[in-house]
Amino acid sequence: MQTENSNIGSYKFVAEPFLVDFTGHLTVGMLGNHLLNCAGFHATARGFGIPALEKLHCTWVLSRLAVEMDRMPCQYETFTVETWVENFYRLFTNRNFAVLDETGSAIGYARTIWAVIDLDTRKPVDLPAEAAGRIADYLCGRPCPIEKPSRMKAAALEPADTLPVRYSDIDINGHVNSIRYIEHILDLFPLEMYRRRRVRRFEATYVAESRYGDSLAFYKQQTGEDIYEVELRKNGAESVCRAKIVFADAPAPSA
Amino acid sequence: MQTENSNIGSYKFVAEPFLVDFTGHLTVGMLGNHLLNCAGFHATARGFGIPALEKLHCTWVLSRLAVEMDRMPCQYETFTVETWVENFYRLFTNRNFAVLDETGSAIGYARTIWAVIDLDTRKPVDLPAEAAGRIADYLCGRPCPIEKPSRMKAAALEPADTLPVRYSDIDINGHVNSIRYIEHILDLFPLEMYRRRRVRRFEATYVAESRYGDSLAFYKQQTGEDIYEVELRKNGAESVCRAKIVFADAPAPSA
Repeated sequence: MQTENSNIGSYKFVAEPFLVDFTGHLTVGMLGNHLLNCAGFHATARGFGIPALEKLHCTWVLSRLAVEMDRMPCQYETFTVETWVENFYRLFTNRNFAVLDETGSAIGYARTIWAVIDLDTRKPVDLPAEAAGRIADYLCGRPCPIEKPSRMKAAALEPADTLPVRYSDIDINGHVNSIRYIEHILDLFPLEMYRRRRVRRFEATYVAESRYGDSLAFYKQQTGEDIYEVELRKNGAESVCRAKIVFADAPAPSA
Repeated sequence: MQTENSNIGSYKFVAEPFLVDFTGHLTVGMLGNHLLNCAGFHATARGFGIPALEKLHCTWVLSRLAVEMDRMPCQYETFTVETWVENFYRLFTNRNFAVLDETGSAIGYARTIWAVIDLDTRKPVDLPAEAAGRIADYLCGRPCPIEKPSRMKAAALEPADTLPVRYSDIDINGHVNSIRYIEHILDLFPLEMYRRRRVRRFEATYVAESRYGDSLAFYKQQTGEDIYEVELRKNGAESVCRAKIVFADAPAPSA
């Protein structure tokens, strides 16, 4: 199902029934899961994935994510995720995505920004020269026609919800996984919202890691007619993640 | 990736990094997701899946699930799910599963029991003769060497946790999806438990449906050295789901 013979990786998926929401559309969290998996497939097949970085005692971490969809794939719909690296700098690498329907038309795009951290200190380090050399061979100038992740403002004064970090939130690194944050953030909105509206754009900035035992407070604020910003703070203090959600009219129920 | 030319359906998967837990093993919830998808693939390809039943104004619902694993697939491991129908009765159909590693050795099995409900009343109805006729062509006597789902006892007096039903819990039918119950139930155990122990067997009986706005109380009781039973009740009264979890020693960290 993978095409690895070019700068662009192409991977086919089906929107599985337990991974769609009550409107029958793939959830933003599960789309995010597919995007991050494709990033891993693409990088690993080209020699600059996590296995290559781990040999250099470091790893990739997702720093920012922006997804913008004209529509989400429907239950049982086949769709393709394409991904490519736009460019890289000392501290950050930009990877973009297109989501295509069965006819090959784009139904959405995503931008991600990745950092490299040391496996012990979990602090950012420079992109190793060896990885940079590999990435340079695969850069791709294909346009990604959505806005870059934006600056986000301060959070509300009162948390909309507070959740303890649970077993199912934790990934193999011992931290809350990037996808779970998305699910928890979208759970802050009432079901009624998703009946009338859909998530057109979702942005997240991952600031710090949280662990089992942490308490996550979700500060939610409406910052525009269809725009909400959410800040997650752990244990009443440190900012962990910021998100921006832009809603649009949901498609007619027949869609 | 599918084999549809026999009574047994065979489907290949990879344990994706965001779908494994902190020990690097596929979660029980995501294994359940794969099993239920395979049930759908198998039945639909043979003319007795949900699309066929919907034409008769009814649908399949999962009534019971028992999964028993010698070990769970590890991150990035390829595994195969095989599924077949053991037999069917007026009200219940038994479908079994084997989970195979890359060499084709079984690492676990599952048993499921399915009922048919009317799309409007959501009450059980007799298996339509048309579907029964199709199923009869595909019965398979292959053994499934794990115990059938067992009777479960009464619940504890005090809930271990209470959760509101949220957006991400709800499936396309407007009810909490079967997989989310599994995740919430396993979140009742502290992370420390999963460091030392693994889930060897997980059983669930789905008794009633719950919806957005319901409050789910989780009554947890230890009923044996390694055995826990959980009852979910909605809105302080009606039983929704019962589960039994049997733990065993976790594999050594190198596994």
